[in-house]
Amino acid sequence: MRAALVGTGLIGASLGMALLRSDEVTSISGYDRNADELQTALERGAITDMATDARQAVTGADLVILAVPVSAMGPVMRDIAPSLREGAIVTDVASVKSEAVRVLEAAAPAGVHVIGGHPMAGSHEHGAEHACADLFVGATYLLTPTQQTDSAAYSTVHQLVVDIKARPLAVDPDHHDQLVAIISHLPQLAATTLMNLASERAQAEHAGLLLLAAGGFRDATRVAASNPDLWLDICDQNGAAITAVLDEYGNRIADLRDAIAGKDWKGVCSRLSAARTARQGMPGKESVTGALVELVLPIPDRPGVLAEVTTSVGSIGVNIEDLGIEHAPEGGGGRLRLAIIGTAEAERAVAILVDRGYEVLREEL
Amino acid sequence: MRAALVGTGLIGASLGMALLRSDEVTSISGYDRNADELQTALERGAITDMATDARQAVTGADLVILAVPVSAMGPVMRDIAPSLREGAIVTDVASVKSEAVRVLEAAAPAGVHVIGGHPMAGSHEHGAEHACADLFVGATYLLTPTQQTDSAAYSTVHQLVVDIKARPLAVDPDHHDQLVAIISHLPQLAATTLMNLASERAQAEHAGLLLLAAGGFRDATRVAASNPDLWLDICDQNGAAITAVLDEYGNRIADLRDAIAGKDWKGVCSRLSAARTARQGMPGKESVTGALVELVLPIPDRPGVLAEVTTSVGSIGVNIEDLGIEHAPEGGGGRLRLAIIGTAEAERAVAILVDRGYEVLREEL
Repeated sequence: MRAALVGTGLIGASLGMALLRSDEVTSISGYDRNADELQTALERGAITDMATDARQAVTGADLVILAVPVSAMGPVMRDIAPSLREGAIVTDVASVKSEAVRVLEAAAPAGVHVIGGHPMAGSHEHGAEHACADLFVGATYLLTPTQQTDSAAYSTVHQLVVDIKARPLAVDPDHHDQLVAIISHLPQLAATTLMNLASERAQAEHAGLLLLAAGGFRDATRVAASNPDLWLDICDQNGAAITAVLDEYGNRIADLRDAIAGKDWKGVCSRLSAARTARQGMPGKESVTGALVELVLPIPDRPGVLAEVTTSVGSIGVNIEDLGIEHAPEGGGGRLRLAIIGTAEAERAVAILVDRGYEVLREEL
Repeated sequence: MRAALVGTGLIGASLGMALLRSDEVTSISGYDRNADELQTALERGAITDMATDARQAVTGADLVILAVPVSAMGPVMRDIAPSLREGAIVTDVASVKSEAVRVLEAAAPAGVHVIGGHPMAGSHEHGAEHACADLFVGATYLLTPTQQTDSAAYSTVHQLVVDIKARPLAVDPDHHDQLVAIISHLPQLAATTLMNLASERAQAEHAGLLLLAAGGFRDATRVAASNPDLWLDICDQNGAAITAVLDEYGNRIADLRDAIAGKDWKGVCSRLSAARTARQGMPGKESVTGALVELVLPIPDRPGVLAEVTTSVGSIGVNIEDLGIEHAPEGGGGRLRLAIIGTAEAERAVAILVDRGYEVLREEL
C-alpha cells in the first residue's frame, strides 16, 4: 500500500514510523508546510520521500493521512481532492471529529472513501523530532464511521490500526466530541487553570510557592505545557461540548467546596473514596488477554450498518480486534465478522447487537 | 544521635531510611499502632528496633519524629510528653502546620524543642512497603519556625534535612497552610473531581469513555488514588484555606468557560500561553549549581529572630543550604551564618534581610 502523509508533526510522524514498520505500507510520500519538520520526518524514518506540496504527496496514493490542525482540514482536503485517485482512502487524526468528518466527506470526490480517526495518544512535546513508532502501542484509536462509510475502506483502516498495535474503538463523530471534551479537553483546561493560578499567586505573594510543588502538582499540570495553537483550535471546534463539561466540572468543584466548608465529612469522604476506586480500576495500556471470540452477523445492504454495528460495540467499551466483511456474491447484504477478546466482552457485544435487531452467530476460536 | 519514629507509613519510613543512611542518626526506635506496618518498617531498614508503644519509642531519644495524621498529633504528643528527655527535639511531617505546630508547642514540656516540618514529597502509594530512602532527594522540605523556636534545635533539624539531600525552606506555619492549599490540596481535589466526573459519565453514558484516557488524563488524575483518610484529615485541618482556593479555582474555570463560549480567542490564547510558559519554567528537582555565598548576620537576642530571618529568605523562594549559629560568649545576641547557592539568590536574600532591618555581612566561598 502506498501512503501519503500531509502534516509531519508529532502525531503524523509517529504514525508514519509505525506504519512503515508494519508490512502493509511500503512507501509514504510526505508533505508539511514547515520544511524543517518535513526534513526531520524523513530523517526520522516517518516518510520515504518528500513532496513539494500536498497535491504531489497524495497523487497515486492508496491511503492518505491528514495530520493537520482541525481548522486546516477543510482547506487541505479541497486542495488535494482533484489529485486523489479513485478508490483512495482518506483518514485524519483530528482531535475534534464532528466538523472534520463533515468537511472531509463533503469535499471527497466520488469514489474516495473518508474514514475519520483519532489516536488517543500524544505528548506535551510536539514536532517530528519527538515522534515515536511506539506512541500508539496499547492506546485506544478511535474511528468515526458514519452513514456514508464504505465498509471495505473501514475494514482496511481498522486493520492498519491493529497493525500498529493500537486498539480500535468505533464511535459516532458527534458523540466522539462529547467524550473527548471529558477525557481530554477538560484535563487540559483544568491543568492550564491550575498552573496559572499557582503561577500568579507565586508572583503576587510568595516566590517560593513553586518550589513546594511535589509530584501531585507536577503530574496535574504536565499537559499545561502543550502547544497553545493546537488547543485554541480544539476550543474553537469543540466549544459547545467543552463549555458544557466546564460547567459540570465547575459545579462539582463548588459542591466539593461547600461540602468542606459545611464539614460534611461523609460527603467529602465518599467523593475521595469513589475517585480512588475509579482511578485504581482504570483500564491500563497492558495487553489484553482472554479467549478470542468471533461473532458473525448477517448484515443487510443499507447505508450505515457498519457504523451502527461498530459504534454499538464501541459504546459499551469493547474493542473489535479484527473486522472482516464478506459480501454475498449475489448482492443484497453479506456477513460481518468481528473478533473480540474475552468471553464476557463478547457476551456484552452480542447483547447490544441483538438489542439493536441484529442476528449474531457466535464461534469461539 | 538517637532518634524515635512514631508512625511508620510511607513518609515516616522513608525518612527513617534516609536518616539511617546519613551519619548523624545511629539508631531509630519505631512505633506504629499497626503492627504489620511496624514490622515492615523494621524489615525495610526504616527503624533499628520496634517499641511496644510511643512512650517507649521516645524514651531517651535526642530526636523524635512524629509521622502520624494531623488529627492524631495532639493526642500522640500529650501521650509521649512525660517520656521526653530534656533537650529533645520533636519534629513532625504533617501536611497542615498551623494547628499541628500550635498543638505540639502547647504540649511540649519545658526544655523540649518543637520544629515543625513538612517534606514536599510523597506518592499516591502508602505504607512502609513503598518507602524509599531517596524520596526526599532534591525535594523542598518546609520548616515552620515560630517565635518560640530554639535556634540550635532549628539548626540541627535544618542540617538533617540537608543530610537527606532535601532542600530546606522556612515558612511561617499559617502562611504554609495557604501555600499548600494551592500547590498540594487543590491539585488533589481537582484530580478527585475530574476522576469522579469522568467515571460517573462513563457509567451513565458510554462505558468506553475511560478507554479513551491518554497520558493527559492519567497524569491529571494520578493522585486521585490517594488515601481518603489522609485527605479527609487535611480538608478538616485546612478547611478555610482550601475553600478559599477552591473558590478562586472555580472562578477561573468559569472565566475560561465564558471566554470559550464568547469566542474570546485572544483571552483563551493568553491563558494557554501563560500556563505553558509557567509550566516549562517550573523549577525542577535537578541539583542546583552556582557559587556558594555565605551571609553573616549579627542577630539580637530576642525571640523570633531565627523565624524572621529564615522565613524572609524562604518567602522569596531561596533555599538556605547551610545554617549555623554562634552565640556571643557574653550573651546578648550572636551571629547567624547562612550559606546560599548562587550569587543572584544571595543578592535577593541580602535585599530582603536589609529591608527587614538586619545588617548583612557577605563572604563569597
